[in-house]
Amino acid sequence: MSIELTALKGIPVVEPGDDLAQLILEALKESQLLPRDGDVLVLCQKIVSKAEGRSIAIDEIEPGPLALQVAADAEDKDPRMAELVLRNATRVVMMKRGHLIVETGPGWVCANAGIDASNTGDPNRVLLLPEDPDATAASLAAAIGKAHDCRVAVIVSDTWGRPWRVGLVDFAIGVAGMNPLRDLRGEQDMDGRELHHTVNADADALAAAAGLLMQKGSGTPAVLIRGYLSAPGEGSGNDLIRDLETDLFR
Amino acid sequence: MSIELTALKGIPVVEPGDDLAQLILEALKESQLLPRDGDVLVLCQKIVSKAEGRSIAIDEIEPGPLALQVAADAEDKDPRMAELVLRNATRVVMMKRGHLIVETGPGWVCANAGIDASNTGDPNRVLLLPEDPDATAASLAAAIGKAHDCRVAVIVSDTWGRPWRVGLVDFAIGVAGMNPLRDLRGEQDMDGRELHHTVNADADALAAAAGLLMQKGSGTPAVLIRGYLSAPGEGSGNDLIRDLETDLFR
Repeated sequence: MSIELTALKGIPVVEPGDDLAQLILEALKESQLLPRDGDVLVLCQKIVSKAEGRSIAIDEIEPGPLALQVAADAEDKDPRMAELVLRNATRVVMMKRGHLIVETGPGWVCANAGIDASNTGDPNRVLLLPEDPDATAASLAAAIGKAHDCRVAVIVSDTWGRPWRVGLVDFAIGVAGMNPLRDLRGEQDMDGRELHHTVNADADALAAAAGLLMQKGSGTPAVLIRGYLSAPGEGSGNDLIRDLETDLFR
Repeated sequence: MSIELTALKGIPVVEPGDDLAQLILEALKESQLLPRDGDVLVLCQKIVSKAEGRSIAIDEIEPGPLALQVAADAEDKDPRMAELVLRNATRVVMMKRGHLIVETGPGWVCANAGIDASNTGDPNRVLLLPEDPDATAASLAAAIGKAHDCRVAVIVSDTWGRPWRVGLVDFAIGVAGMNPLRDLRGEQDMDGRELHHTVNADADALAAAAGLLMQKGSGTPAVLIRGYLSAPGEGSGNDLIRDLETDLFR
């Protein structure tokens, strides 16, 4: 059993309104990768946000009292950025020492609502997370499938920190063409003991793996993963979001 | 740029006292993989714990009042297991509805102190996490390096849940031969803007990737990753553990 990850070559700096499917199809060609059944394409959220025109001019933001307090608690935080984070949050999970860990979108929990200040194309502009990465993933999977007569999965990823751990890894925020979870409950281990709690978040693991090839500044926002998926499946990035009711940390 | 992951074939069920280095060298041979500079071997903690004889008979454990309360709060938890978790914890991070998220070992935060009831070889025995996975990783890296005249990295992984997310992924608990973090701070993004906060937890991402090929019950506890590491480095699994002082969630 083996899995191969290849960074796509030839994706240009993405501009608002760009046709991502067209860019990806051209990059696959330039990379001499012919997509086939079971391939998983992982795409960094940044190019999705850019194509959607999700960029915001930070200097037009007027910080309110809560944002001013967050910035005052921080070593180095722009109160306008704090304001923008709060406006894009549906729940504050942790506010401490100027850090804002919030719930945003359909229930993603991450620092600063995933708002991104690097590689935006303009130092005064920041990027919001994509509007609907599941829909983007589905439309890209359909476009690749149509062009190459195959069924592929697509994951849109973002890079987040984790409680208790140092450093960032990539997570899946949009998923199409596969089940993001591998549910082993009810199967047996090698001793014949039933597995009760084993649901693997494979789409997050695939995003993390792809992230190894798409470091910031590298200009490689898309990675093709071959050998993981044995059959297409159904699912959405929201399947990876824990319900408030079962969450111990929200 | 591409990365290839291959599950090693031919690793038998590991018994206490087994020579892991010898088993891995034989499995590499059987898998027709000739290790070379920059390879990263990821090893599931379970076979390390088994080789170290870290198995405990659960029926010898006498639960105390705290363990009895944890089990009473749970839908389905053995109070003896709760007792064992508490005895192996250095801090209780969350105790709610019968769940125990604790700090264990050098500062790993995970459910049930990482104590594992599946694939132990005996339904009445559970496995503690390895004593010193950094040392195990270092000795395996040295043994492979000596046998094949090359410098490889080794990661020992464990499978954990995450706050806010559904499903489990693998994390790195022992690391040798590489820096587990990729520190991009001070480098510039594509707009020439300095990256302030970007430290990537690459060893966790490598562990997560390898986990895709080592699902429970598959009998593939080791994965070789080729193409990631350009040069050997230094570091330990503890580099991935966040200090209590900077942790927002402990």
